[in-house]
Amino acid sequence: MIVQTPTKYFLVSGCAEGLTELNAFDAALINAGAGNTNLVRLSSILPPRCEEIPPVRIPQGALLPTAYSSITSDEPGRVLTAAVSIAFPEDEDHCGLIMEYHDFARRADVEEKVCQMALAGMDFRGQKVKRVESLACEHVVRETGAAFAAVVLWN
Amino acid sequence: MIVQTPTKYFLVSGCAEGLTELNAFDAALINAGAGNTNLVRLSSILPPRCEEIPPVRIPQGALLPTAYSSITSDEPGRVLTAAVSIAFPEDEDHCGLIMEYHDFARRADVEEKVCQMALAGMDFRGQKVKRVESLACEHVVRETGAAFAAVVLWN
Amino acid sequence: MIVQTPTKYFLVSGCAEGLTELNAFDAALINAGAGNTNLVRLSSILPPRCEEIPPVRIPQGALLPTAYSSITSDEPGRVLTAAVSIAFPEDEDHCGLIMEYHDFARRADVEEKVCQMALAGMDFRGQKVKRVESLACEHVVRETGAAFAAVVLWN
Repeated sequence: MIVQTPTKYFLVSGCAEGLTELNAFDAALINAGAGNTNLVRLSSILPPRCEEIPPVRIPQGALLPTAYSSITSDEPGRVLTAAVSIAFPEDEDHCGLIMEYHDFARRADVEEKVCQMALAGMDFRGQKVKRVESLACEHVVRETGAAFAAVVLWN
Repeated sequence: MIVQTPTKYFLVSGCAEGLTELNAFDAALINAGAGNTNLVRLSSILPPRCEEIPPVRIPQGALLPTAYSSITSDEPGRVLTAAVSIAFPEDEDHCGLIMEYHDFARRADVEEKVCQMALAGMDFRGQKVKRVESLACEHVVRETGAAFAAVVLWN
Repeated sequence: MIVQTPTKYFLVSGCAEGLTELNAFDAALINAGAGNTNLVRLSSILPPRCEEIPPVRIPQGALLPTAYSSITSDEPGRVLTAAVSIAFPEDEDHCGLIMEYHDFARRADVEEKVCQMALAGMDFRGQKVKRVESLACEHVVRETGAAFAAVVLWN
């Protein structure tokens, strides 16, 4: 069965410096607690009745379905924020919506925007929203930095 | 078994406006009938003897292997087209080739090009082509818009 | 079980020309021996005790978890290199790290850098490195070209 539906999720975020932008991204994943895995990037729905769990210890090298936001830069002094949000529907039989956003901006602004995006997406669906959850990481680049935020899906 | 091969497929396309480019993309997926799922992006082969089916009602939040094209813009008045094509081989034991193309251009031009791309790819393989199938969506941006076209793989 | 961990791997690389940049990418995959498959892109860990195998004949259209680097250009005369590396830990219970890098540069420079990146990433983890493996493909663009290098994961 190729088409599968996750049943659990958790949010993580992290920031880091690295030798290159990819090294900084890799280190940000480790700081987030999602490192040493193989992220498989998703566009980005929380299945109905998907249950939040504490971040789990993921087997090293596992293929991990993940909706994520990331931003990297090698310009010292730049402010980076990556953020994710989830809008949960009042109707428990409907899926939730995950949104990702990143910008060269402060955490408060980026996190506010990613929450507005999730609300707008549920409004487009005609779904009433029960609550919105979000997580973000802000980083000021020293040499080469990355910010990362993700919803990890699991079962 | 990590390595799996789909056995069915269908084509979808859609366009939409949204609060942000990601919201427009999300809404275009819904208009296409592939919304509320977790697209896993593929590079982009139709397995041999893969069978076309009518678009199915996908479980919300399912991980969905998909080859897709998308384009977004927040410049009012711009014309956006996203297109996919499939070239089917005469030899039924050989795979087909999926191609994706998008541009700030009219549907006729983008769809013609994506079909040429699929033909060229099969020619590179030395495979005779039985027929080419394609689908595209053209959108004129009002504020922030997206066009999306995809081959959804299934089994 | 959605979360899975590969147990085998192999490296491939290839370069090619094509009608468009996507056609060149598609042809580079074929030249690399990873063509006619559906690559699912990963960020990019080698599971502990993952075993190297000779490149296998992959079923056409199979979903193939792959960490890869690619670069394309339609500027005649440009030099393109795509490279991947794997740093293997002394501690066999720890994962290895895959890095990807591409640039408009010669193979020797790009391959050296991608190895440095893998070493830096293992240093960040506090892991001693037993050895580094790498593979790259350099291409001089005639009309429209692509370079591709990958670690294919398998089980």
